[in-house]
Amino acid sequence: MTNGVAELFKRVSLGVYVVGVTDGHRKSAFTAAWVTQVSFKPLMLAVSVNPHSSTFPLLESSQTFSVNVLAEEQIELARHFGTPGLPDKLAGIDWHSGSSGCPLLRQALAWFECEVTGIYPAGDHLLVVGHVTGGHLQNRDVLPLTYRDTGNMDGAERFYPASLEA
Amino acid sequence: MTNGVAELFKRVSLGVYVVGVTDGHRKSAFTAAWVTQVSFKPLMLAVSVNPHSSTFPLLESSQTFSVNVLAEEQIELARHFGTPGLPDKLAGIDWHSGSSGCPLLRQALAWFECEVTGIYPAGDHLLVVGHVTGGHLQNRDVLPLTYRDTGNMDGAERFYPASLEA
Repeated sequence: MTNGVAELFKRVSLGVYVVGVTDGHRKSAFTAAWVTQVSFKPLMLAVSVNPHSSTFPLLESSQTFSVNVLAEEQIELARHFGTPGLPDKLAGIDWHSGSSGCPLLRQALAWFECEVTGIYPAGDHLLVVGHVTGGHLQNRDVLPLTYRDTGNMDGAERFYPASLEA
Repeated sequence: MTNGVAELFKRVSLGVYVVGVTDGHRKSAFTAAWVTQVSFKPLMLAVSVNPHSSTFPLLESSQTFSVNVLAEEQIELARHFGTPGLPDKLAGIDWHSGSSGCPLLRQALAWFECEVTGIYPAGDHLLVVGHVTGGHLQNRDVLPLTYRDTGNMDGAERFYPASLEA
């Protein structure tokens, strides 16, 4: 049974994304749900990322990232890019490099390319804010995958306390 | 017809929230969609807000805010709290003060109370990051309103350029 706090946080509506990174040589990507638009002018997105992941140094080094929007039937792709420890997460995936060099997934419903404008503390994560320098809607006919619909795919429920009282 | 860039950004999945603020005396609230969780430990949310709104100084003064999650049938409530220039947005609304003093809407599907931990630049907005100090799921039986389903309720489409090429 999910605890009350995990259920409460499921009421924050989120999509599911594959964030692509590169340091100019290596390329990788990871699944993320904590993504929002943050500005109109310029157009900007923010992504909250785990600074201890093996891929974060790539983002930090190039100060660029891509955000690939997964479609509702792409939960397996979310699971794949959410699996830690794979030697090459992009192996067997159809992708190409964006103008920043970050991987763009040909299967994604849409993608954005971003240049980092700031990285800010956010508890056990870092909030990466980026100016959107490119983007493309690849498929108008399918809806985005919602994080809520992935259930406990990523095992995140264990990270919520049973109660909000400290 | 919506332009391509506005359509692209609609693929970022977002909910619709009423952010409640107080300076200890006055209380107000405004509609926001750019909200995401950003940390597990401690539990934190981020909200991107317009620093030129009349209500932002209240948030800045108390360094607290509430996030009320609207349900799928509450588009009128979203419209109400998104209307600028109302003398008292909370008039005629059933609300009570949270422990921070910020307004919590009795009709909301769920609410969170947050203490600000940082306010960061994000283009034409400010990204307010807050530690979640309280929260309650008031109605398990309805789904959250999604920003996508509000169409162009807030007139935001005009803020998107026709193309991402600068």
